[in-house]
Amino acid sequence: LEDALCELLGEPIKVSAAGRTDAGVHASGQVVSFMSFRNFPFERLSLALGSLLPPDVGVRDTAIVEASFSARFSATERTYVYAIHNRPERAPLTARYAWHVWRPIQVARMQAAAPALIGEHDFRSFCGILPDNDITVRRISQLRIEARGDFIRIEITAGGFLHRMVRTIVGTLLECATGRRDPAELPVILRARDRRAAGCTAPPNGLYLAGVRYGDGYCSYGEPPIFRWGTTVS
Amino acid sequence: LEDALCELLGEPIKVSAAGRTDAGVHASGQVVSFMSFRNFPFERLSLALGSLLPPDVGVRDTAIVEASFSARFSATERTYVYAIHNRPERAPLTARYAWHVWRPIQVARMQAAAPALIGEHDFRSFCGILPDNDITVRRISQLRIEARGDFIRIEITAGGFLHRMVRTIVGTLLECATGRRDPAELPVILRARDRRAAGCTAPPNGLYLAGVRYGDGYCSYGEPPIFRWGTTVS
Repeated sequence: LEDALCELLGEPIKVSAAGRTDAGVHASGQVVSFMSFRNFPFERLSLALGSLLPPDVGVRDTAIVEASFSARFSATERTYVYAIHNRPERAPLTARYAWHVWRPIQVARMQAAAPALIGEHDFRSFCGILPDNDITVRRISQLRIEARGDFIRIEITAGGFLHRMVRTIVGTLLECATGRRDPAELPVILRARDRRAAGCTAPPNGLYLAGVRYGDGYCSYGEPPIFRWGTTVS
Repeated sequence: LEDALCELLGEPIKVSAAGRTDAGVHASGQVVSFMSFRNFPFERLSLALGSLLPPDVGVRDTAIVEASFSARFSATERTYVYAIHNRPERAPLTARYAWHVWRPIQVARMQAAAPALIGEHDFRSFCGILPDNDITVRRISQLRIEARGDFIRIEITAGGFLHRMVRTIVGTLLECATGRRDPAELPVILRARDRRAAGCTAPPNGLYLAGVRYGDGYCSYGEPPIFRWGTTVS
């Protein structure tokens, strides 16, 4: 994206992105900002970028914002969605876009475990690489889990997340769902403040940065295509 | 699949497949048959194949059938589903699983054009490589087109299809939908019996062999994941 912007604007561009997407993680609602002094016709920027970007990146919309705006630092909430495909047989057509779990999943057990994570907690047990400032307290405002046919959709919203926090939460909830862990363990895991107390890290391919909210009310939400069709299973 | 079966059964295996899937075309309901004289525990065949097959192939179910059964020649009907993603911006997350069309599509014009193709016709104008016997008459029993949000789902059922027939039909219907062609042209295209009379060949990535029906009532239907969520758009 920086290379394409540099080519269009004729000056080096450094972008700021709202949310982390590690290798293999998708983004359907990423927001990116940059500063430029060129007088480019911005209503044509999406189209122009389309011809320069590699096929796995797409720009949905562009807007001119105040100089003080930062896609990363002005964001007030991020929403991640995680997709699990639960069926005994292999699922090649969804392999890149959902975590295939062949063991039967008891969604009610995940739902029973989830409330303990909502609100402000020290999520050190769910953190991969610790942040520079060593502050591991975060506030999850919403955590919803629902079954849709043989898919499970997990949506987590917070002001900010720690490294691999969503994937570690999903991995731990899954261990509750398959019976390897008791849903009542979650408060104990939080109190441990130790990564070894939590469960496995779910693979990146099921994770989507789905939306970012800003103080002015703007929200970039993009539902992952695998969940585009509402809740009626055909 | 033949290599994996050969390794499991210890004898060379030749499979027969119900429907053609050219490079880039998906199959969510393919049926394959083979003959073996080994006494393998067939209830464990899916699982055993799972550990030997490459990640882009999966076996959903297996069954023992009569020696006269052929996945290809015993099939009475095949159903293909074609997925179009219609939006002005790029769509990287669906690029491998739908045809991205950025021009606005008038679905009603596709629906107006479709009925002329239903029933028995000479589909030579919609045929890539002519079949060995040079017979190009086929019978389309169903052709349904519906919009679902910014996706369009096209479902075509026939006893058999010619080479690239579905993709050429989709390409021609799309030219009607974008206004390049009049829906009333379809009967003229059929009568021409000339590939040059029809429209472009739609790309393979939007096409799925979704189901195969047999005389005994067995049907292998598997809805493409991109359309798994019924008709309610969220």
